[in-house]
Amino acid sequence: MSETAPTPDFMRRLAAAAAAETLPRFRGQGAVTNKHAAGFDPVTEADRAAEEAIRALIRSHFPGHGILGEEFGAEGTDNSHVWVIDPIDGTRAFISGLPLWGTLVGLTVEGRAVAGMMSQPFTGELYYADGEGAHYEGPGGGRRLAVRPTTRLEEATLCTTTPALFDAPRRKLYDRVEAAVRLPRYGTDCYAYAMVAAGHVDLVIESGLNAYDIVALIPIIEQAGGVVTTWDGGRAEGGGDIVAAATPELHQRALELLRG
Amino acid sequence: MSETAPTPDFMRRLAAAAAAETLPRFRGQGAVTNKHAAGFDPVTEADRAAEEAIRALIRSHFPGHGILGEEFGAEGTDNSHVWVIDPIDGTRAFISGLPLWGTLVGLTVEGRAVAGMMSQPFTGELYYADGEGAHYEGPGGGRRLAVRPTTRLEEATLCTTTPALFDAPRRKLYDRVEAAVRLPRYGTDCYAYAMVAAGHVDLVIESGLNAYDIVALIPIIEQAGGVVTTWDGGRAEGGGDIVAAATPELHQRALELLRG
Repeated sequence: MSETAPTPDFMRRLAAAAAAETLPRFRGQGAVTNKHAAGFDPVTEADRAAEEAIRALIRSHFPGHGILGEEFGAEGTDNSHVWVIDPIDGTRAFISGLPLWGTLVGLTVEGRAVAGMMSQPFTGELYYADGEGAHYEGPGGGRRLAVRPTTRLEEATLCTTTPALFDAPRRKLYDRVEAAVRLPRYGTDCYAYAMVAAGHVDLVIESGLNAYDIVALIPIIEQAGGVVTTWDGGRAEGGGDIVAAATPELHQRALELLRG
Repeated sequence: MSETAPTPDFMRRLAAAAAAETLPRFRGQGAVTNKHAAGFDPVTEADRAAEEAIRALIRSHFPGHGILGEEFGAEGTDNSHVWVIDPIDGTRAFISGLPLWGTLVGLTVEGRAVAGMMSQPFTGELYYADGEGAHYEGPGGGRRLAVRPTTRLEEATLCTTTPALFDAPRRKLYDRVEAAVRLPRYGTDCYAYAMVAAGHVDLVIESGLNAYDIVALIPIIEQAGGVVTTWDGGRAEGGGDIVAAATPELHQRALELLRG
Protein backbone atom coordinates (compact mmCIF):
# COMPACT_ATOMS: atom_id res chain seq x y z
CA MET A 1 0.00 0.00 0.00
CA SER A 2 1.24 3.47 -0.84
CA GLU A 3 -0.31 6.62 0.61
CA THR A 4 0.44 10.29 0.33
CA ALA A 5 -0.27 11.64 3.83
CA PRO A 6 -0.45 10.17 7.33
CA THR A 7 -3.98 9.57 8.62
CA PRO A 8 -5.06 9.42 12.27
CA ASP A 9 -5.36 5.68 11.82
CA PHE A 10 -1.73 5.48 10.71
CA MET A 11 -0.73 7.42 13.85
CA ARG A 12 -2.59 4.90 15.98
CA ARG A 13 -0.90 2.02 14.16
CA LEU A 14 2.54 3.55 14.76
CA ALA A 15 1.71 3.96 18.46
CA ALA A 16 0.44 0.39 18.75
CA ALA A 17 3.42 -1.11 16.93
CA ALA A 18 5.84 0.73 19.22
CA ALA A 19 3.84 -0.10 22.36
CA ALA A 20 4.02 -3.81 21.58
CA GLU A 21 7.81 -3.55 21.89
CA THR A 22 8.24 -0.95 24.65
CA LEU A 23 5.51 -1.72 27.15
CA PRO A 24 6.44 -5.35 27.94
CA ARG A 25 9.97 -4.11 28.76
CA PHE A 26 8.84 -1.15 30.93
CA ARG A 27 9.23 -1.90 34.66
CA GLY A 28 10.26 -5.45 33.82
CA GLN A 29 6.65 -6.36 33.11
CA GLY A 30 5.81 -9.30 30.93
CA ALA A 31 7.69 -12.40 29.88
CA VAL A 32 10.09 -10.60 27.57
CA THR A 33 12.44 -9.68 30.39
CA ASN A 34 13.06 -13.31 31.28
CA LYS A 35 15.13 -13.96 28.20
CA HIS A 36 17.57 -11.10 28.65
CA ALA A 37 21.17 -12.12 28.34
CA ALA A 38 23.47 -10.52 30.87
CA GLY A 39 24.65 -7.09 29.74
CA PHE A 40 21.76 -6.39 27.38
CA ASP A 41 19.35 -3.98 28.93
CA PRO A 42 15.59 -3.77 28.40
CA VAL A 43 15.59 -0.12 27.33
CA THR A 44 18.11 -0.75 24.54
CA GLU A 45 16.10 -3.77 23.41
CA ALA A 46 12.87 -1.77 23.53
CA ASP A 47 14.44 1.16 21.65
CA ARG A 48 15.71 -1.02 18.82
CA ALA A 49 12.68 -3.26 18.50
CA ALA A 50 10.26 -0.30 18.53
CA GLU A 51 12.24 1.56 15.85
CA GLU A 52 12.30 -1.56 13.67
CA ALA A 53 8.52 -1.93 14.01
CA ILE A 54 7.97 1.75 13.16
CA ARG A 55 10.32 1.58 10.17
CA ALA A 56 8.51 -1.49 8.84
CA LEU A 57 5.15 0.30 8.99
CA ILE A 58 6.51 3.41 7.27
CA ARG A 59 8.22 1.39 4.51
CA SER A 60 5.00 -0.51 3.89
CA HIS A 61 2.72 2.55 3.76
CA PHE A 62 5.12 5.13 2.30
CA PRO A 63 7.70 3.17 0.32
CA GLY A 64 9.14 6.23 -1.38
CA HIS A 65 9.82 8.15 1.83
CA GLY A 66 13.11 8.52 3.69
CA ILE A 67 13.62 7.55 7.34
CA LEU A 68 15.92 8.97 10.01
CA GLY A 69 15.93 7.17 13.37
CA GLU A 70 17.85 7.40 16.62
CA GLU A 71 18.85 3.74 16.59
CA PHE A 72 19.33 2.82 12.91
CA GLY A 73 20.30 6.11 11.27
CA ALA A 74 19.34 7.42 7.84
CA GLU A 75 17.84 5.71 4.77
CA GLY A 76 16.65 7.58 1.68
CA THR A 77 16.89 10.95 3.40
CA ASP A 78 17.47 12.71 0.05
CA ASN A 79 13.72 12.18 -0.52
CA SER A 80 11.44 15.23 -0.08
CA HIS A 81 9.48 13.27 2.57
CA VAL A 82 11.48 12.03 5.57
CA TRP A 83 10.16 10.38 8.74
CA VAL A 84 12.07 11.09 11.95
CA ILE A 85 11.87 8.56 14.81
CA ASP A 86 12.80 8.48 18.48
CA PRO A 87 11.45 5.13 19.68
CA ILE A 88 11.89 6.03 23.37
CA ASP A 89 12.37 9.69 24.21
CA GLY A 90 13.19 9.85 27.92
CA THR A 91 15.14 6.64 28.45
CA ARG A 92 16.07 7.81 31.98
CA ALA A 93 12.40 8.12 32.87
CA PHE A 94 11.83 4.70 31.30
CA ILE A 95 14.49 2.99 33.43
CA SER A 96 13.20 4.78 36.55
CA GLY A 97 9.66 3.43 36.09
CA LEU A 98 8.25 6.92 35.43
CA PRO A 99 5.57 7.15 32.70
CA LEU A 100 6.79 10.43 31.17
CA TRP A 101 8.78 8.88 28.30
CA GLY A 102 7.23 8.65 24.86
CA THR A 103 7.54 7.33 21.32
CA LEU A 104 8.09 10.09 18.77
CA VAL A 105 7.47 9.84 15.02
CA GLY A 106 7.42 12.94 12.82
CA LEU A 107 7.19 13.61 9.09
CA THR A 108 9.17 16.35 7.36
CA VAL A 109 8.47 17.59 3.84
CA GLU A 110 11.36 19.52 2.30
CA GLY A 111 12.85 19.77 5.79
CA ARG A 112 9.74 21.16 7.45
CA ALA A 113 7.84 19.14 10.08
CA VAL A 114 4.22 18.77 8.91
CA ALA A 115 2.83 15.83 10.92
CA GLY A 116 3.81 13.87 13.98
CA MET A 117 2.81 11.81 16.98
CA MET A 118 3.86 11.24 20.60
CA SER A 119 2.51 8.17 22.33
CA GLN A 120 2.77 7.08 25.98
CA PRO A 121 1.64 3.48 26.09
CA PHE A 122 1.55 2.98 29.89
CA THR A 123 -1.00 5.79 30.28
CA GLY A 124 -2.59 4.99 26.91
CA GLU A 125 -2.14 8.53 25.58
CA LEU A 126 -1.69 9.56 21.96
CA TYR A 127 -0.96 13.14 20.88
CA TYR A 128 -0.76 13.75 17.14
CA ALA A 129 -0.92 16.33 14.38
CA ASP A 130 -1.93 15.27 10.89
CA GLY A 131 -1.56 18.56 9.02
CA GLU A 132 -5.19 19.53 9.69
CA GLY A 133 -4.94 19.98 13.45
CA ALA A 134 -3.60 18.50 16.66
CA HIS A 135 -5.49 15.86 18.61
CA TYR A 136 -5.47 13.86 21.84
CA GLU A 137 -6.77 10.33 22.32
CA GLY A 138 -6.63 8.51 25.65
CA PRO A 139 -8.03 8.52 29.20
CA GLY A 140 -10.78 11.13 29.50
CA GLY A 141 -11.72 10.77 25.81
CA GLY A 142 -10.54 12.30 22.56
CA ARG A 143 -10.36 16.00 21.84
CA ARG A 144 -8.76 18.70 19.74
CA LEU A 145 -5.57 20.06 21.29
CA ALA A 146 -5.30 23.79 21.93
CA VAL A 147 -2.72 25.80 23.83
CA ARG A 148 -3.89 28.13 26.60
CA PRO A 149 -3.65 31.91 26.11
CA THR A 150 -0.80 32.67 28.52
CA THR A 151 1.16 35.73 27.36
CA ARG A 152 3.11 36.75 30.50
CA LEU A 153 6.05 34.95 32.07
CA GLU A 154 4.68 35.71 35.57
CA GLU A 155 1.68 33.49 34.77
CA ALA A 156 3.59 30.72 33.02
CA THR A 157 4.38 27.12 33.97
CA LEU A 158 7.83 26.23 32.58
CA CYS A 159 9.18 22.71 32.05
CA THR A 160 12.67 21.40 31.41
CA THR A 161 13.97 17.87 31.80
CA THR A 162 16.76 18.93 34.17
CA PRO A 163 18.73 22.17 34.57
CA ALA A 164 21.85 19.97 34.65
CA LEU A 165 21.55 19.57 30.85
CA PHE A 166 22.48 23.23 30.23
CA ASP A 167 26.15 24.24 29.98
CA ALA A 168 27.19 27.17 32.19
CA PRO A 169 26.41 30.08 29.81
CA ARG A 170 23.08 28.57 28.76
CA ARG A 171 22.22 27.77 32.38
CA LYS A 172 22.61 31.45 33.22
CA LEU A 173 20.14 32.38 30.47
CA TYR A 174 17.72 29.59 31.38
CA ASP A 175 17.82 30.67 35.04
CA ARG A 176 16.64 34.17 34.04
CA VAL A 177 13.50 32.66 32.55
CA GLU A 178 12.99 30.27 35.47
CA ALA A 179 13.22 33.20 37.90
CA ALA A 180 10.53 35.06 35.95
CA VAL A 181 7.87 32.33 35.71
CA ARG A 182 5.21 31.32 38.19
CA LEU A 183 5.97 27.59 38.29
CA PRO A 184 8.97 25.59 37.03
CA ARG A 185 8.73 21.79 36.71
CA TYR A 186 11.51 19.29 36.00
CA GLY A 187 11.71 15.70 34.79
CA THR A 188 9.39 15.92 31.82
CA ASP A 189 11.20 14.95 28.55
CA CYS A 190 8.84 14.87 25.53
CA TYR A 191 5.79 14.86 27.79
CA ALA A 192 6.24 18.58 28.49
CA TYR A 193 5.73 19.48 24.82
CA ALA A 194 2.49 17.50 24.73
CA MET A 195 1.36 19.41 27.84
CA VAL A 196 2.01 22.73 26.02
CA ALA A 197 -0.13 21.55 23.08
CA ALA A 198 -2.84 20.40 25.51
CA GLY A 199 -2.95 23.72 27.39
CA HIS A 200 -1.56 22.56 30.77
CA VAL A 201 1.99 23.97 30.48
CA ASP A 202 3.07 27.22 28.83
CA LEU A 203 6.77 26.96 28.12
CA VAL A 204 9.47 24.31 27.54
CA ILE A 205 13.14 25.28 27.33
CA GLU A 206 15.86 22.76 26.54
CA SER A 207 19.35 22.58 25.14
CA GLY A 208 21.34 20.15 22.99
CA LEU A 209 18.39 18.30 21.49
CA ASN A 210 18.77 16.09 18.46
CA ALA A 211 16.46 16.38 15.45
CA TYR A 212 14.69 13.17 16.49
CA ASP A 213 13.96 14.64 19.96
CA ILE A 214 11.88 17.48 18.52
CA VAL A 215 10.68 16.93 14.92
CA ALA A 216 7.57 14.92 15.90
CA LEU A 217 6.60 17.52 18.51
CA ILE A 218 6.83 20.60 16.27
CA PRO A 219 3.58 19.96 14.32
CA ILE A 220 1.73 18.96 17.49
CA ILE A 221 2.58 22.28 19.13
CA GLU A 222 2.15 24.39 15.99
CA GLN A 223 -1.18 22.82 15.02
CA ALA A 224 -2.41 23.36 18.62
CA GLY A 225 -1.65 27.07 18.21
CA GLY A 226 1.77 27.23 19.87
CA VAL A 227 5.24 28.27 18.74
CA VAL A 228 8.46 26.28 18.76
CA THR A 229 11.83 27.57 17.59
CA THR A 230 15.51 27.57 18.47
CA TRP A 231 16.66 30.09 21.07
CA ASP A 232 17.57 32.50 18.25
CA GLY A 233 14.11 32.23 16.69
CA GLY A 234 14.95 29.87 13.81
CA ARG A 235 13.12 26.69 12.75
CA ALA A 236 13.48 23.86 15.29
CA GLU A 237 13.68 20.86 12.92
CA GLY A 238 17.45 20.56 13.33
CA GLY A 239 17.30 20.34 17.12
CA GLY A 240 19.78 22.26 19.29
CA ASP A 241 18.58 24.84 21.83
CA ILE A 242 14.78 24.77 21.78
CA VAL A 243 11.99 26.90 23.20
CA ALA A 244 8.33 25.93 22.88
CA ALA A 245 5.64 28.38 23.96
CA ALA A 246 1.87 28.49 24.18
CA THR A 247 1.59 31.89 22.46
CA PRO A 248 3.73 34.13 20.23
CA GLU A 249 3.76 36.79 22.98
CA LEU A 250 5.09 34.38 25.61
CA HIS A 251 7.59 33.00 23.10
CA GLN A 252 8.85 36.53 22.47
CA ARG A 253 9.28 37.21 26.24
CA ALA A 254 11.28 33.99 26.61
CA LEU A 255 13.48 34.72 23.57
CA GLU A 256 14.34 38.14 24.96
CA LEU A 257 15.77 36.55 28.12
CA LEU A 258 17.43 33.64 26.29
CA ARG A 259 19.25 35.94 23.88
CA GLY A 260 21.30 37.31 26.77
CA MET B 1 -19.97 -1.28 59.80
CA SER B 2 -16.99 -1.38 62.13
CA GLU B 3 -13.76 -3.17 61.28
CA THR B 4 -10.42 -3.60 63.00
CA ALA B 5 -7.91 -3.49 60.15
CA PRO B 6 -7.86 -2.16 56.59
CA THR B 7 -8.36 -4.77 53.87
CA PRO B 8 -7.17 -4.56 50.25
CA ASP B 9 -10.79 -3.97 49.33
CA PHE B 10 -10.92 -0.97 51.66
CA MET B 11 -7.78 0.43 49.97
CA ARG B 12 -9.49 0.08 46.59
CA ARG B 13 -12.60 1.84 47.91
CA LEU B 14 -10.51 4.73 49.26
CA ALA B 15 -8.79 5.04 45.88
CA ALA B 16 -12.08 4.94 43.98
CA ALA B 17 -13.77 7.48 46.25
CA ALA B 18 -10.87 9.90 45.83
CA ALA B 19 -10.63 9.32 42.06
CA ALA B 20 -14.29 10.23 41.61
CA GLU B 21 -13.43 13.71 42.93
CA THR B 22 -9.91 14.27 41.56
CA LEU B 23 -9.97 12.79 38.08
CA PRO B 24 -12.84 14.88 36.62
CA ARG B 25 -10.92 18.00 37.71
CA PHE B 26 -7.53 16.87 36.34
CA ARG B 27 -6.69 18.61 33.04
CA GLY B 28 -10.10 20.24 33.05
CA GLN B 29 -11.68 16.97 31.93
CA GLY B 30 -15.34 16.30 32.54
CA ALA B 31 -18.30 18.53 33.22
CA VAL B 32 -17.26 19.49 36.75
CA THR B 33 -14.98 22.26 35.52
CA ASN B 34 -17.83 24.10 33.83
CA LYS B 35 -19.39 25.16 37.10
CA HIS B 36 -16.30 26.76 38.60
CA ALA B 37 -16.91 30.19 39.98
CA ALA B 38 -14.14 32.67 39.23
CA GLY B 39 -11.34 32.47 41.78
CA PHE B 40 -11.99 28.89 42.88
CA ASP B 41 -9.51 26.54 41.34
CA PRO B 42 -10.00 22.90 40.35
CA VAL B 43 -7.13 21.57 42.45
CA THR B 44 -8.50 23.14 45.65
CA GLU B 45 -11.94 21.77 44.85
CA ALA B 46 -10.50 18.35 44.11
CA ASP B 47 -8.38 18.38 47.28
CA ARG B 48 -11.31 19.23 49.54
CA ALA B 49 -13.87 16.97 47.88
CA ALA B 50 -11.49 13.99 47.85
CA GLU B 51 -10.60 14.43 51.52
CA GLU B 52 -14.30 14.63 52.43
CA ALA B 53 -14.99 11.41 50.53
CA ILE B 54 -12.06 9.65 52.21
CA ARG B 55 -13.10 10.86 55.68
CA ALA B 56 -16.65 9.63 55.11
CA LEU B 57 -15.40 6.14 54.22
CA ILE B 58 -13.09 5.99 57.23
CA ARG B 59 -15.80 7.21 59.64
CA SER B 60 -18.20 4.60 58.31
CA HIS B 61 -15.76 1.66 58.49
CA PHE B 62 -13.68 2.67 61.51
CA PRO B 63 -15.92 4.92 63.62
CA GLY B 64 -13.60 4.85 66.63
CA HIS B 65 -10.52 6.00 64.74
CA GLY B 66 -9.01 9.48 64.58
CA ILE B 67 -8.36 11.36 61.32
CA LEU B 68 -5.72 13.90 60.38
CA GLY B 69 -6.00 15.47 56.92
CA GLU B 70 -4.26 18.19 54.95
CA GLU B 71 -7.47 20.08 54.21
CA PHE B 72 -9.70 19.61 57.27
CA GLY B 73 -7.23 19.07 60.12
CA ALA B 74 -7.55 16.73 63.12
CA GLU B 75 -10.52 14.90 64.60
CA GLY B 76 -10.20 12.30 67.39
CA THR B 77 -6.43 12.15 67.09
CA ASP B 78 -6.09 11.14 70.76
CA ASN B 79 -7.28 7.68 69.60
CA SER B 80 -4.63 4.94 69.28
CA HIS B 81 -5.60 4.54 65.61
CA VAL B 82 -5.28 7.63 63.42
CA TRP B 83 -5.69 7.90 59.64
CA VAL B 84 -3.52 10.46 57.86
CA ILE B 85 -4.71 11.87 54.52
CA ASP B 86 -3.20 13.91 51.70
CA PRO B 87 -5.94 13.95 49.06
CA ILE B 88 -3.60 15.30 46.35
CA ASP B 89 0.12 15.01 46.98
CA GLY B 90 1.83 16.88 44.17
CA THR B 91 -0.61 19.70 43.47
CA ARG B 92 1.98 21.34 41.19
CA ALA B 93 2.14 18.20 39.04
CA PHE B 94 -1.69 18.12 39.08
CA ILE B 95 -2.03 21.67 37.76
CA SER B 96 0.67 21.01 35.13
CA GLY B 97 -1.21 18.01 33.71
CA LEU B 98 1.52 15.57 34.81
CA PRO B 99 0.29 12.21 36.17
CA LEU B 100 2.83 11.97 39.02
CA TRP B 101 0.53 13.26 41.77
CA GLY B 102 -1.24 10.82 44.07
CA THR B 103 -3.81 10.35 46.79
CA LEU B 104 -2.23 9.28 50.10
CA VAL B 105 -4.04 7.59 52.99
CA GLY B 106 -2.10 6.01 55.86
CA LEU B 107 -3.02 4.42 59.20
CA THR B 108 -0.95 4.93 62.36
CA VAL B 109 -1.32 2.84 65.51
CA GLU B 110 0.21 4.46 68.60
CA GLY B 111 2.02 6.85 66.26
CA ARG B 112 3.54 4.19 64.01
CA ALA B 113 2.48 3.83 60.36
CA VAL B 114 1.21 0.27 59.80
CA ALA B 115 -0.85 0.45 56.59
CA GLY B 116 -1.29 2.85 53.72
CA MET B 117 -2.09 3.44 50.09
CA MET B 118 -1.04 5.69 47.22
CA SER B 119 -3.31 5.86 44.18
CA GLN B 120 -2.81 7.55 40.81
CA PRO B 121 -6.19 7.53 39.11
CA PHE B 122 -5.15 8.80 35.65
CA THR B 123 -2.76 5.85 35.20
CA GLY B 124 -5.04 3.55 37.22
CA GLU B 125 -2.30 2.58 39.66
CA LEU B 126 -2.75 1.55 43.30
CA TYR B 127 0.17 0.90 45.65
CA TYR B 128 -0.74 -0.26 49.14
CA ALA B 129 0.49 -1.99 52.29
CA ASP B 130 -2.00 -3.75 54.56
CA GLY B 131 0.29 -4.89 57.37
CA GLU B 132 0.95 -8.24 55.66
CA GLY B 133 2.88 -6.93 52.66
CA ALA B 134 3.01 -4.29 49.94
CA HIS B 135 1.14 -4.67 46.68
CA TYR B 136 0.61 -3.09 43.26
CA GLU B 137 -2.57 -3.16 41.20
CA GLY B 138 -2.90 -1.47 37.82
CA PRO B 139 -1.65 -1.63 34.22
CA GLY B 140 0.47 -4.75 33.71
CA GLY B 141 -1.45 -6.65 36.38
CA GLY B 142 -1.20 -7.05 40.14
CA ARG B 143 1.91 -8.10 42.03
CA ARG B 144 3.72 -8.05 45.31
CA LEU B 145 6.00 -5.03 45.68
CA ALA B 146 9.68 -5.59 46.43
CA VAL B 147 12.62 -3.19 46.45
CA ARG B 148 15.68 -4.01 44.34
CA PRO B 149 18.93 -4.98 46.06
CA THR B 150 20.97 -1.83 45.38
CA THR B 151 23.54 -1.25 48.12
CA ARG B 152 25.97 1.24 46.52
CA LEU B 153 25.35 4.91 45.76
CA GLU B 154 27.26 4.57 42.46
CA GLU B 155 24.52 2.20 41.25
CA ALA B 156 21.56 4.12 42.63
CA THR B 157 18.78 6.11 40.98
CA LEU B 158 17.87 9.05 43.24
CA CYS B 159 14.64 11.06 43.12
CA THR B 160 13.66 14.38 44.65
CA THR B 161 10.78 16.66 43.69
CA THR B 162 13.06 19.64 43.12
CA PRO B 163 16.42 20.68 44.59
CA ALA B 164 14.87 24.14 45.07
CA LEU B 165 12.95 22.78 48.07
CA PHE B 166 16.15 22.42 50.15
CA ASP B 167 17.45 25.39 52.14
CA ALA B 168 21.12 26.24 51.58
CA PRO B 169 22.71 23.99 54.27
CA ARG B 170 20.49 21.04 53.35
CA ARG B 171 21.09 21.63 49.64
CA LYS B 172 24.82 21.26 50.24
CA LEU B 173 24.25 17.87 51.93
CA TYR B 174 21.76 16.73 49.29
CA ASP B 175 24.20 17.69 46.52
CA ARG B 176 26.81 15.35 48.03
CA VAL B 177 24.43 12.44 47.59
CA GLU B 178 23.37 13.56 44.12
CA ALA B 179 27.02 13.74 43.05
CA ALA B 180 27.57 10.17 44.26
CA VAL B 181 24.64 8.44 42.54
CA ARG B 182 24.35 7.08 39.01
CA LEU B 183 21.13 8.82 38.04
CA PRO B 184 19.21 11.67 39.67
CA ARG B 185 15.59 12.39 38.65
CA TYR B 186 13.41 15.37 39.56
CA GLY B 187 9.70 16.14 39.54
CA THR B 188 8.42 13.02 41.25
CA ASP B 189 6.48 13.89 44.47
CA CYS B 190 4.89 10.81 46.11
CA TYR B 191 5.37 8.77 42.95
CA ALA B 192 9.08 8.38 43.71
CA TYR B 193 8.38 6.50 46.96
CA ALA B 194 6.13 4.08 45.09
CA MET B 195 8.94 3.52 42.59
CA VAL B 196 11.31 2.62 45.47
CA ALA B 197 8.80 0.07 46.78
CA ALA B 198 8.36 -1.30 43.24
CA GLY B 199 12.10 -1.70 42.63
CA HIS B 200 12.57 0.94 39.92
CA VAL B 201 14.21 3.68 42.02
CA ASP B 202 16.66 3.27 44.91
CA LEU B 203 16.62 6.48 46.90
CA VAL B 204 14.34 9.45 47.63
CA ILE B 205 15.61 12.46 49.58
CA GLU B 206 13.38 15.37 50.53
CA SER B 207 13.12 18.14 53.07
CA GLY B 208 10.34 19.93 54.94
CA LEU B 209 7.65 17.27 54.46
CA ASN B 210 4.47 17.26 56.52
CA ALA B 211 3.25 14.12 58.28
CA TYR B 212 0.51 13.72 55.66
CA ASP B 213 3.12 13.75 52.86
CA ILE B 214 4.87 10.63 54.16
CA VAL B 215 2.77 8.55 56.62
CA ALA B 216 0.93 6.59 53.90
CA LEU B 217 4.20 5.83 52.10
CA ILE B 218 6.15 4.47 55.10
CA PRO B 219 4.35 1.09 55.29
CA ILE B 220 4.46 0.69 51.50
CA ILE B 221 8.25 1.07 51.49
CA GLU B 222 8.86 -0.89 54.69
CA GLN B 223 6.61 -3.80 53.69
CA ALA B 224 8.35 -3.91 50.28
CA GLY B 225 11.66 -4.36 52.12
CA GLY B 226 12.94 -0.76 52.11
CA VAL B 227 13.89 1.74 54.78
CA VAL B 228 12.50 5.22 55.40
CA THR B 229 13.65 7.57 58.19
CA THR B 230 14.48 11.18 58.89
CA TRP B 231 17.97 12.37 57.92
CA ASP B 232 19.13 11.64 61.47
CA GLY B 233 17.83 8.08 61.35
CA GLY B 234 14.64 8.57 63.39
CA ARG B 235 11.10 7.43 62.57
CA ALA B 236 9.60 9.33 59.63
CA GLU B 237 5.95 9.57 60.78
CA GLY B 238 6.34 13.21 61.84
CA GLY B 239 7.63 14.34 58.43
CA GLY B 240 10.55 16.77 58.17
CA ASP B 241 13.75 15.78 56.34
CA ILE B 242 13.16 12.34 54.84
CA VAL B 243 15.30 9.67 53.20
CA ALA B 244 13.80 6.50 51.71
CA ALA B 245 16.11 3.73 50.50
CA ALA B 246 15.80 0.35 48.83
CA THR B 247 18.16 -1.37 51.29
CA PRO B 248 19.60 -0.77 54.77
CA GLU B 249 23.11 -0.58 53.27
CA LEU B 250 22.14 2.13 50.77
CA HIS B 251 20.22 3.97 53.49
CA GLN B 252 23.35 3.96 55.66
CA ARG B 253 25.50 5.36 52.80
CA ALA B 254 23.00 8.17 52.25
CA LEU B 255 22.73 9.01 55.97
CA GLU B 256 26.52 9.31 56.21
CA LEU B 257 26.52 12.03 53.55
CA LEU B 258 23.35 13.75 54.84
CA ARG B 259 24.75 14.01 58.39
CA GLY B 260 27.44 16.40 57.16
